[in-house]
Amino acid sequence: MGETVRLIEVKENILDDNTRVADALRARLKREKTFLVNLMASPGAGKTSTVIHTTDRLKERLTVGVLEADIDSTVDAEKVAATGVAAIQMRTGGFCHLDATMVSDGLAAIGSEGFDLILLENVGNLVCPAEFDTGAALNAMILSVPEGDDKPLKYPLMFSVCDVVIVNKTDTCALFDFDRARFEEGVRKVNPSCPIFDISCRTGKGIDAWVAWLTEKILAHNA
Amino acid sequence: MGETVRLIEVKENILDDNTRVADALRARLKREKTFLVNLMASPGAGKTSTVIHTTDRLKERLTVGVLEADIDSTVDAEKVAATGVAAIQMRTGGFCHLDATMVSDGLAAIGSEGFDLILLENVGNLVCPAEFDTGAALNAMILSVPEGDDKPLKYPLMFSVCDVVIVNKTDTCALFDFDRARFEEGVRKVNPSCPIFDISCRTGKGIDAWVAWLTEKILAHNA
Repeated sequence: MGETVRLIEVKENILDDNTRVADALRARLKREKTFLVNLMASPGAGKTSTVIHTTDRLKERLTVGVLEADIDSTVDAEKVAATGVAAIQMRTGGFCHLDATMVSDGLAAIGSEGFDLILLENVGNLVCPAEFDTGAALNAMILSVPEGDDKPLKYPLMFSVCDVVIVNKTDTCALFDFDRARFEEGVRKVNPSCPIFDISCRTGKGIDAWVAWLTEKILAHNA
Repeated sequence: MGETVRLIEVKENILDDNTRVADALRARLKREKTFLVNLMASPGAGKTSTVIHTTDRLKERLTVGVLEADIDSTVDAEKVAATGVAAIQMRTGGFCHLDATMVSDGLAAIGSEGFDLILLENVGNLVCPAEFDTGAALNAMILSVPEGDDKPLKYPLMFSVCDVVIVNKTDTCALFDFDRARFEEGVRKVNPSCPIFDISCRTGKGIDAWVAWLTEKILAHNA
């Protein structure tokens, strides 16, 4: 019991410290006119594919960089770099989430000044990343259709902290009996107003609408 | 920095304490002839569907119970209970994993004595559950095809701690360009010998082979 109390105390201190670092980072990026997006999702939901589709549409008009977080391996950063976009891999070495200090370190490594947009791919996990403010101006989460339409009920914190939800792999809705109305109803229980974009990284459907919305956010932030 | 060192110390103590509780629980369940399976996977990989297919095939010949862990919601336990199998929902209240003490509490709640098999559905997460021994006799993990064949590279701890890997949604391999050989190669890098079963909860394919293997493990443990 003593251990549990101690753990909770340490966790609260860590979260408080992290919020301070995140707020300072957000203020700095606002001054520097760099829009940081924190992209969260389950393993295999299509984070890296969404990153690549998004940067493909923006890289001609904006200076874009990508921070890829992973517990191990560097395959995601390699995939992104192959498309001609600046990318670095952040290995968390077992950590289940990113905190604002890790993100600051990642931004220093990529040299974030001069970037209009940095996309940060968080660790594949619907639980822990929701607890840690990364300093991003926008929290986005991707839910892929094969995961099921009941996920907002099961991971309410994640769905409540995100500013936008992207539904990926929508070309497989029929195959997985995904009830889009039921999904939205679940999202609305914890997040009354965030936009929801339906995309398919396989077919490209819906990505233009997501990128158009994102572009407005970037331009407004960096104005 | 002081906080980080303190966090690591607390985490190490927590893990040590948990291992002691888990070892004691495992010994007790061995004496009581109850086989506990810890089932881990990403959100939406098909844990509950696999539980239901498995219990459907075993409930006539064995006394089976199910512990469903979830951060919030009780939908999984309700689904399982609807099939006539004893099930209780354990809400972790935000925790990203189960530890052995939580599992002991769940076993007390279901009244585990007299059960031949208890299936424990862990929180949907490929990271944190891998760090905490639940006291189970068998660690099983499910990887669903839409998540991609590269997951062993990205979540090596999970793939290394499991005693068996189940590949679910194999009816969608072609749709998701899932390279089964590449997946197995990835598993073998961290886990040279665990069996891998290919199933589809949608079509029922492969489930008999998994259940036959599991039955042998249960009978050997409870002999």
